[in-house]
Amino acid sequence: KMGLWKRTLTSPGVFLLQMGWGDLGAFGEPSKETPNLDQMAAEGMLFLDFYTANPLCSPSRAALLTGRLPVRNGFYTTNGHARNAYTPQDIVGGIPDSELLLPELLKKAGYVNKIIGKWHLGHRPQFHPLKHGFDEWFGSPNCHFGPYDNRERPNIPIYRDWEMIGRYYEDFKIDLKTGEANLTQLYLQEALDFISKQQASQQPFFLYWAIDATHAPVYASKQFLGTSQRGLYGDAVREIDDSVGKILHHLQQLGISENTFVFFTSDNGAALISAPRQGGSNGPFLCGKQTTFEGGMREPAIAWWPGHIPAGGVSHQLGNVMDLFSTSLSLAGLQPPSDRQIDGIDLLPVLLQGKLIDRPIFYYRGNELMAVRAGLYKAHYWTWSNSWEEHSKGIDFCPGQSVSGVTTHTQEEHTYLPLLFHLGRDPGEKFPLSFASEEYQRAMESISGLVQQHKATLVPGQPQLNVCDQAVMNWSPPGCEKLGKCLKAPESDPKKCSWPH
Amino acid sequence: KMGLWKRTLTSPGVFLLQMGWGDLGAFGEPSKETPNLDQMAAEGMLFLDFYTANPLCSPSRAALLTGRLPVRNGFYTTNGHARNAYTPQDIVGGIPDSELLLPELLKKAGYVNKIIGKWHLGHRPQFHPLKHGFDEWFGSPNCHFGPYDNRERPNIPIYRDWEMIGRYYEDFKIDLKTGEANLTQLYLQEALDFISKQQASQQPFFLYWAIDATHAPVYASKQFLGTSQRGLYGDAVREIDDSVGKILHHLQQLGISENTFVFFTSDNGAALISAPRQGGSNGPFLCGKQTTFEGGMREPAIAWWPGHIPAGGVSHQLGNVMDLFSTSLSLAGLQPPSDRQIDGIDLLPVLLQGKLIDRPIFYYRGNELMAVRAGLYKAHYWTWSNSWEEHSKGIDFCPGQSVSGVTTHTQEEHTYLPLLFHLGRDPGEKFPLSFASEEYQRAMESISGLVQQHKATLVPGQPQLNVCDQAVMNWSPPGCEKLGKCLKAPESDPKKCSWPH
Repeated sequence: KMGLWKRTLTSPGVFLLQMGWGDLGAFGEPSKETPNLDQMAAEGMLFLDFYTANPLCSPSRAALLTGRLPVRNGFYTTNGHARNAYTPQDIVGGIPDSELLLPELLKKAGYVNKIIGKWHLGHRPQFHPLKHGFDEWFGSPNCHFGPYDNRERPNIPIYRDWEMIGRYYEDFKIDLKTGEANLTQLYLQEALDFISKQQASQQPFFLYWAIDATHAPVYASKQFLGTSQRGLYGDAVREIDDSVGKILHHLQQLGISENTFVFFTSDNGAALISAPRQGGSNGPFLCGKQTTFEGGMREPAIAWWPGHIPAGGVSHQLGNVMDLFSTSLSLAGLQPPSDRQIDGIDLLPVLLQGKLIDRPIFYYRGNELMAVRAGLYKAHYWTWSNSWEEHSKGIDFCPGQSVSGVTTHTQEEHTYLPLLFHLGRDPGEKFPLSFASEEYQRAMESISGLVQQHKATLVPGQPQLNVCDQAVMNWSPPGCEKLGKCLKAPESDPKKCSWPH
Repeated sequence: KMGLWKRTLTSPGVFLLQMGWGDLGAFGEPSKETPNLDQMAAEGMLFLDFYTANPLCSPSRAALLTGRLPVRNGFYTTNGHARNAYTPQDIVGGIPDSELLLPELLKKAGYVNKIIGKWHLGHRPQFHPLKHGFDEWFGSPNCHFGPYDNRERPNIPIYRDWEMIGRYYEDFKIDLKTGEANLTQLYLQEALDFISKQQASQQPFFLYWAIDATHAPVYASKQFLGTSQRGLYGDAVREIDDSVGKILHHLQQLGISENTFVFFTSDNGAALISAPRQGGSNGPFLCGKQTTFEGGMREPAIAWWPGHIPAGGVSHQLGNVMDLFSTSLSLAGLQPPSDRQIDGIDLLPVLLQGKLIDRPIFYYRGNELMAVRAGLYKAHYWTWSNSWEEHSKGIDFCPGQSVSGVTTHTQEEHTYLPLLFHLGRDPGEKFPLSFASEEYQRAMESISGLVQQHKATLVPGQPQLNVCDQAVMNWSPPGCEKLGKCLKAPESDPKKCSWPH
């Protein structure tokens, strides 16, 4: 069996979106409105302890595609201590040329690579996904925020491959009042067409389906609007669920499901700040997006590969989106780069033989290692939800949740006496272990060793998310001339980006 | 098909215990350690919106067996406003003779009825389960608290049928240090034997398996100790899961699974005050046992009846433990009593035809209607977690959770402007709807009608949980003479029971 996927060049596909651990029926969402994802889990393997690399979108996506922590690949900021940063359209940085992305490597093994949806690894020309290994692109470089006035700020462009083909709110409608937008349907059709084309030419492929309907402003197509118990967010989830079902069905219809490895996960926990209308659920976990509590980084995750991954499996393997880099290379019979530190691990022994691989999970916020998980223990070296100043403005990453000394509104250092939780007994991180207990001593001994080792060998990358400049916004993306959609950029005025949390 | 179960006198069985909504893998527990219960759900129907009748054990059990709200059947107190009350061993009251219990009614249709485990409907002679329709009993009248010194307070007895056969901690060991006790194994064997006996004599039966391993002090048998990621509580859950699997397997082996209706649920939400070592999980819901938030009263629930209930079904029917009364009568071809108000409904149309029956859920705390759910809306007329006084002693029913104006530490009246939540968008009850919204007006209009109707016709029963007396404790239960275990009761000194929350 191990030989089969190597011979046939199994195609890896990744579905990535912003969703909480608790948003799927299989993970206990009380509305149970995801029959297709639940079916995917029943036919594949459910990961209960799977993490993203960062509590925010851009760094997580950079980590997925490079197999490396954001602090290594440059997707972090040093403008402030332990600050979340991403790639708004005034960001100057992006994915460095020195980074090797999964599609660049897969290309060497003859794969055709496509990204559908949000790229988020920089929007300036040198960061274009087709310069970093992708062969095709349909989607946008940034979040679908807006509408903007095209004076202070341009509307975000949608690209087809090298060039823009329109802008959000102008050519790709999103009705902020009703929440109606048909983008997920466009992304679905793109995926189905791409898969059909590769199958017809017997071409191994990598499809990165990076949709964003569950990211505020949340949207759904007309046929899904109002169909969920959960409101607009649930409508978006239902459309995504439906789309995943159609894609998997398509693979089966084409007879290539046994040659296609599919993984579903999320780039950060549910944004509770957008709840309830636009925010998802992190199930029993603490807080959400922006935090290094479990709600910010533990993700729903399903692996699917009929005939290879035993149906109905449930894994407690500590996994990470960076593992999709290493696992995909392994599927393609490739070795990961040996000239740099790779943080992902090859999950095939977990998927195919049910093995458990001992490895830690590192929880970073910007330039700081906030927490570490090893086995069932999680040690917090720093705690912070957000500042009092932000909190007083109503910005709340832990609505309704408040754990004394844990969900702190000042940055609290615990490096000399970390806060320790046992995530089996206490998945919600509500009951720190006693510092005086033997259990604390024993667990911290082994975690301290892991942290020392990690820090001793860490070489941080050049931080990419420090400088912002209104001149680099999406004023005149390639292709704008043909559409008459070029806008005049203001004078360059680079400054430090402001990252308040 | 409808005729079949009537002809063969299908046996109803109920599993009742103290467990949270989020404690089962099928409901999203992140350790997924309940393969047998998850299998039961896969073969039967999962109820996602199923409730108990009270956030505390005794009143819920009285409601299950009478089909009536505790405020009607007398299982409440008027010693204070909106106080939880139960049946400690100094309680004077118990189930009134005027109440008709499920086994009393089933007897008329030729059923043999057994209760295994905690009765909790009063321990004085007139309240004995065999005086209220049960034919057999193995278990105890009260919680397995202790050990006591048999001077200030006697240890709780275990009964076989009419007589005690020993006491907890003396004859039925519970090791509070290690958590070891083999009681669940005893209860399991009792269940298997009872079922075998009824099957051999072609006897329709009702088995009420009311185990208590997940109630503090939590316990498990040696073979399960230390096997769970979740600590001792998880060990207890695993043993219960294993036992349920064995009972269902036994029904299948005997060839009577298609004639046996089995229902699994809980008498209150997880007791978060006992977390993490002795407390379960209420998943995404607010607070736990003792409260009328969802964590206190929404329960895991699974119906199983192979060949009748379609496998893998998921129901959003608003259900209640009182429905098990009405449904069981219906299974036995009996009519519910017509001389009194019955709050349970017959769930067979839901189970067999997937129907949805419109009905409200009433959330009582003692003598007060705290909240009402209709459809996806829940209106709180009163909010209270517990008093500041209790809270300052470390008694916390909502650890780590605090929703401003909702999890209040004083009893807050909202009868003129109820707090309204949409449980689809906001299962955690964290975001009250705006009083000014049209949605609020519309929802409250219909809920107000339901409440008016409910209150207008409500005839409260004689409150049974007002008076406590040390003389009525389990000093000399029937059978104590044979064992030399009779203790001398102190002088009678009846007083108002103290119910602090």
